[in-house]
Amino acid sequence: MRKSFLLTLLGVGLNILPNFAQVKEASLNIGIGPKVKMLLSKMTLEEKVGQMTNLTLDAISKTDAAGKIVEPHQIDEDKLKEKILKYHVGSFQNVAGHTYDRKHWFEIISAMQRVALQDRLKIPALYGIDAIHGVTYTIGSTLFPQEIGMAATFNPKLVQQIGGISAYETRASYIPWNFSPVLDVAKFQTWPRIYETFGEDPFLVKTMGAALIKGYQGNNVGDKYHVTSTMKHFLGYGAPLSGKDRTPAWIPDRYMREYFLPPFIEAVKAGSRTVMINSSEINGVPVHSSKYLLTDVLRKELKFDGIVISDWMDVRYLYTRHHVAASEKEAVGLAVNAGIDMCIVPFDYTFYDYLIQLVHEGKVPMSRINEAVARILQVKYELGLFERPIGSPEDYTKFGSAEFTAVNHQAAAEAITLLKNNNNILPLKKSMKVLVTGPAANTMRSLDGGWSYTWQGDQDDKYAADKNTILEAIQQKIGKNNVAYEKGATFDSLQNVNATLEAAQKADAVILCLGETSYTENVGNIDDLNLPAAQIELAQQLAKTGKPIILVMAEGRPRIITPAESLSSATIMAYFSGNEGGNALADILFGDVNPSGKLPFTYPRNANALVNYYRKNLENGNSDDAHGYNPLYEFGFGLSYTPFRYSNLRLDKANLKDDESVNISVDVTNNGARTGKESVLLFISDLYASIAPDTKRLRGFDKIELKAGETRTVTFKITAKDLAFINDLSKPVTEPGEFKVQIGDQTKNFNYQTTAPFKPAIDGKL
Amino acid sequence: MRKSFLLTLLGVGLNILPNFAQVKEASLNIGIGPKVKMLLSKMTLEEKVGQMTNLTLDAISKTDAAGKIVEPHQIDEDKLKEKILKYHVGSFQNVAGHTYDRKHWFEIISAMQRVALQDRLKIPALYGIDAIHGVTYTIGSTLFPQEIGMAATFNPKLVQQIGGISAYETRASYIPWNFSPVLDVAKFQTWPRIYETFGEDPFLVKTMGAALIKGYQGNNVGDKYHVTSTMKHFLGYGAPLSGKDRTPAWIPDRYMREYFLPPFIEAVKAGSRTVMINSSEINGVPVHSSKYLLTDVLRKELKFDGIVISDWMDVRYLYTRHHVAASEKEAVGLAVNAGIDMCIVPFDYTFYDYLIQLVHEGKVPMSRINEAVARILQVKYELGLFERPIGSPEDYTKFGSAEFTAVNHQAAAEAITLLKNNNNILPLKKSMKVLVTGPAANTMRSLDGGWSYTWQGDQDDKYAADKNTILEAIQQKIGKNNVAYEKGATFDSLQNVNATLEAAQKADAVILCLGETSYTENVGNIDDLNLPAAQIELAQQLAKTGKPIILVMAEGRPRIITPAESLSSATIMAYFSGNEGGNALADILFGDVNPSGKLPFTYPRNANALVNYYRKNLENGNSDDAHGYNPLYEFGFGLSYTPFRYSNLRLDKANLKDDESVNISVDVTNNGARTGKESVLLFISDLYASIAPDTKRLRGFDKIELKAGETRTVTFKITAKDLAFINDLSKPVTEPGEFKVQIGDQTKNFNYQTTAPFKPAIDGKL
Repeated sequence: MRKSFLLTLLGVGLNILPNFAQVKEASLNIGIGPKVKMLLSKMTLEEKVGQMTNLTLDAISKTDAAGKIVEPHQIDEDKLKEKILKYHVGSFQNVAGHTYDRKHWFEIISAMQRVALQDRLKIPALYGIDAIHGVTYTIGSTLFPQEIGMAATFNPKLVQQIGGISAYETRASYIPWNFSPVLDVAKFQTWPRIYETFGEDPFLVKTMGAALIKGYQGNNVGDKYHVTSTMKHFLGYGAPLSGKDRTPAWIPDRYMREYFLPPFIEAVKAGSRTVMINSSEINGVPVHSSKYLLTDVLRKELKFDGIVISDWMDVRYLYTRHHVAASEKEAVGLAVNAGIDMCIVPFDYTFYDYLIQLVHEGKVPMSRINEAVARILQVKYELGLFERPIGSPEDYTKFGSAEFTAVNHQAAAEAITLLKNNNNILPLKKSMKVLVTGPAANTMRSLDGGWSYTWQGDQDDKYAADKNTILEAIQQKIGKNNVAYEKGATFDSLQNVNATLEAAQKADAVILCLGETSYTENVGNIDDLNLPAAQIELAQQLAKTGKPIILVMAEGRPRIITPAESLSSATIMAYFSGNEGGNALADILFGDVNPSGKLPFTYPRNANALVNYYRKNLENGNSDDAHGYNPLYEFGFGLSYTPFRYSNLRLDKANLKDDESVNISVDVTNNGARTGKESVLLFISDLYASIAPDTKRLRGFDKIELKAGETRTVTFKITAKDLAFINDLSKPVTEPGEFKVQIGDQTKNFNYQTTAPFKPAIDGKL
Repeated sequence: MRKSFLLTLLGVGLNILPNFAQVKEASLNIGIGPKVKMLLSKMTLEEKVGQMTNLTLDAISKTDAAGKIVEPHQIDEDKLKEKILKYHVGSFQNVAGHTYDRKHWFEIISAMQRVALQDRLKIPALYGIDAIHGVTYTIGSTLFPQEIGMAATFNPKLVQQIGGISAYETRASYIPWNFSPVLDVAKFQTWPRIYETFGEDPFLVKTMGAALIKGYQGNNVGDKYHVTSTMKHFLGYGAPLSGKDRTPAWIPDRYMREYFLPPFIEAVKAGSRTVMINSSEINGVPVHSSKYLLTDVLRKELKFDGIVISDWMDVRYLYTRHHVAASEKEAVGLAVNAGIDMCIVPFDYTFYDYLIQLVHEGKVPMSRINEAVARILQVKYELGLFERPIGSPEDYTKFGSAEFTAVNHQAAAEAITLLKNNNNILPLKKSMKVLVTGPAANTMRSLDGGWSYTWQGDQDDKYAADKNTILEAIQQKIGKNNVAYEKGATFDSLQNVNATLEAAQKADAVILCLGETSYTENVGNIDDLNLPAAQIELAQQLAKTGKPIILVMAEGRPRIITPAESLSSATIMAYFSGNEGGNALADILFGDVNPSGKLPFTYPRNANALVNYYRKNLENGNSDDAHGYNPLYEFGFGLSYTPFRYSNLRLDKANLKDDESVNISVDVTNNGARTGKESVLLFISDLYASIAPDTKRLRGFDKIELKAGETRTVTFKITAKDLAFINDLSKPVTEPGEFKVQIGDQTKNFNYQTTAPFKPAIDGKL
């Protein structure tokens, strides 16, 4: 029966959906657990290790005579068969740098599954992709704001919607596994992956991360519209001490748990099925070899039971980069024993060969192999791959639809953050003559950023040619006749400045678009956070014309703009806001949308003044020392075209006891003339604690919409547990004492008491 | 007998040395231990807590009607008597901002001791001062290069000499206690106290720290020419994450032991008798309340038995800044129980009052008090204070002598570091016409730095008026007629640029002196490591003249100068090189001294590229990523006017076993035409280890002088223990495997093997 099915499968054309009815029938009778057990019991060591091996698409693609991959990728049947039928490789993953239409993806995935189902045990292959702000590598997909923009919306429901659409379009590309979300807490503003995160605050990151996961996974990761998420990059990846990507971090265990672990705790609760590991070292220990983090913390404490996958080549790097293994084979042993279930090798059979040897030599126990493979099979079952190895093209009629674009537009509109609006110069009148200028004004690269069509986003202008750049959106909004354009500068050097200044003279206002082009990972490393001098110079020259400058920053991280920003009449942070970023920005500039984004990170004033908002009191405890937290704009800052007034902050009890909860309420009034949205942020400070407390910490937020003149009460329910910090025994604890609540300009103190025996930890262990 | 002695003492005039013969006689009969025990047994709790209390000179000085301190300080007898006779305060310390002649110091110290000896138990007072590069606050003293300059000499014998002279001149100021050396390892180049350290390398810091301590203390801290040192600031003070002074650090225990602890271990071995505590927090724990660091590590592991003193007001700050105590009283309890023996309060009796209450309440055990006071009494005995509460003015004829100045000159000459010398433009001919320019050219502030005459060094030009600035030294060297001077810029803004450029046109070479003015602590905080734009601009304008630019950097930390430095023909790092810095620099510029300094820190190329030389391999493991270690100048770099050639690196064994030692030898040849000194630096890399190994680590150095054509063999003896790193159990371990030796351009590998059972730690605990 199996055999005849297989022959049937081999006979189908690539564009005709195979009939998997028989597989489905066979797998419906029993639960996943027993199925995994049964399947595992039939597997040879080689088959098991194959399941733990993940290769890249390039490894199974045709090459030309010079050995170069043929573009677009075409599956090389011989290579594929060797990988799967000889080595039983169980999963593949996307390689950066290629974007295809859905039809081409269908061909690739179908070819892969067709061969996978030829292998002895007919285990479907698993394909994973970085669909980090929509399905990155599929032409026509809905590319949302990057995570940093999603965070700026302070709207988790919207983020969950984004997740849902991204999952839909990923499955529409026949891919069930998304290497997203990034749950890293971004500590240093120089890091090139800031834009891929939800920013600097653990609470914001964990809330948005869980929302995105719920969107990706829905109620059933196995249905045809959902995918499994990947929590990444476990753990502490967002704090490289040098600010460069994949470089060492110094993170004491206490702070690892205080700042970096919470998003992963929340994500495991939200049901994420896979996790990808931090490529770097924490305190000299590469996370890929850290049994403490991968097993003690992730498995035993967090109870995570999904797949742990390495990042690109990172097992080998234990030997070649980190030098904690004296050979590649030793590296494989270290990683698997530490807790790696699946290795992105990604080109060869080294991992496979060494791991088999290590098992034979007794250096990796068979139990470790069985555990890893069981998890992999479990997830394959959960994803419905045994029933539906690939999806049906006709199931995805909403792919790239106007409905999805509307959500994308809302996301960009709620992300973009108004930082300054002197004399209410914004919104501009649509009858105004404007000069649009600056290197970010007319390129999709500064809207989409990296991970868009290609790894570095360097083809954004080709593949998103039908989308509006900032310039195009403004032209569309107020008519080309009202819009002059001069580039003024590239990202690095001045260009046609005189023409630009002349154009400014003729305009009523200058919309100056500065920032960054697309990048990611090490390619985006910088040595100086200051925006390149040419861009600052362009702003300074334009300011001399006396025309009002609307400064728009389209960038992945907060580059230092202080000397330019001081000259602007209005400043807007656009982040990398996706394919609708230009349209949303034009809507905001000309008043069709009331901005409501808030900064998910601290915007620093100077390049060597990179302090997070939740600094310690000591950071600026010296009253005569301004060098503490003095950013250009604070975390959580963002203006609206309508003023919101906070009043009547109140708690339903003055003393919180034990496990009780307290309701904290505040009235928010729209004191202006138009409807607006406001994110209400709840900060709480522990005034004294055995570990020096943070000056304040975000403990809740809620985004509301208020009509002109409307007042609404926002209430947060806070329990003692919500106020916990990690003490010097690395345990979460809420110590009795006084706390300060802060919402907007309102503050109120309350006390917490506990009847439980309480002994503050004061040994001060590191 | 005691009484009659006391009356005698009271009768002596201030300029007549009191006769302490009787005290001396009484104390000679028994050893210090029993004396301490006996004295302690007689003390009341109040007398004990008084000994633990340290107040500032201001607290016992006369004030005017407005409450302002009368300058120069005059002891207020009433205040002094209250402090000592009522509160039994046992020690005082200098307050920043005042410099006096020896006679005035004699009066102050005499008055203090006179009253101290009126108290019931006649315990002499202990006075401490920051004599960090010579005795800071005494007019006419020998002010050496700051520690960073001492480190650049790579000459520990010279540093020990400096210590000896500093001790002599401190005792000549009647002060037996020096709050020096700084043993902090400087991690981030923005920190304003970089210049007070021996730089970024633990081995260099520990070697120089021990040398300075030996110089300060001699064979007997109690003799009239030596003082006790203070190890500071225990522990981890040199790594504030924000780069600002006294701000929080994140340091995992492993790295605390790997990088920051070794200088303190060495200093305890060298016999330092007191230690001052880091004012900041490590991982959220203020060190002043860390029982782990102050007791478990310092007392139990390091076996330190001297005095632990707080830094300025830091016990109170546990409450007001760090917020780890809910009241000042709780702060006192935390600090004393953690291990603080003496508290710089520094103005009032709060510490005294609270501590007595806490003892009565049983919250601080009497044993803790006795332990602390015994240590304080012990050190007072050791310092000879019971025999000689003050010194004899006539004992210090060498104070500020030419002999001492000669050592100072040598120190500056060996510190100043030649970084670039295109086409051997240096040394300049004395017949040349030069323009001397730049904000650092004609001020002693850029030579002496902070902690010179005043806290901030802002009176350097007044008190060191008889010393040569760079300009004055050059004028003296080649004659005023050959030297034009234009300031060109202040430290922050351009000044008379046109005149400067005109002067440059007329000169054969431009000596451009950029850098920093004097500062220390929080006053020296900066938000951007880039040198102010005006100084860069001055360099750029001068370069356009086509005249060769000799760039001299006089600064306390490596400010980013890349755009200016690329324009220079020669670059010299002068640090803050002390009162002879100008002369030594002129000697080097015009060839009377052959430079031999080497950089004790990494000179970064960009403001957000602050990586130490002993980075991890991962830092730039990505071959296509230049953003690892790419500094302007590397740690240990420095040129001579004569070329040194390294050859024939050899080891006396290829395999090192267990506790054996290996001799590593290299031949160094002076290939030039003049005598020169060369610091030979031995770097060793652990190629693979259970904690990701540093790329290289300094494990030895030796400074030699070679005549033209001379060859000498330098040999280092290295044991397995010297190669240890701190593993993930926080223990030092030398793991078997391959090591790479690097001296100059020579490299050689060897193996280490151990027969002892060895199990690498691989759990990866944080």
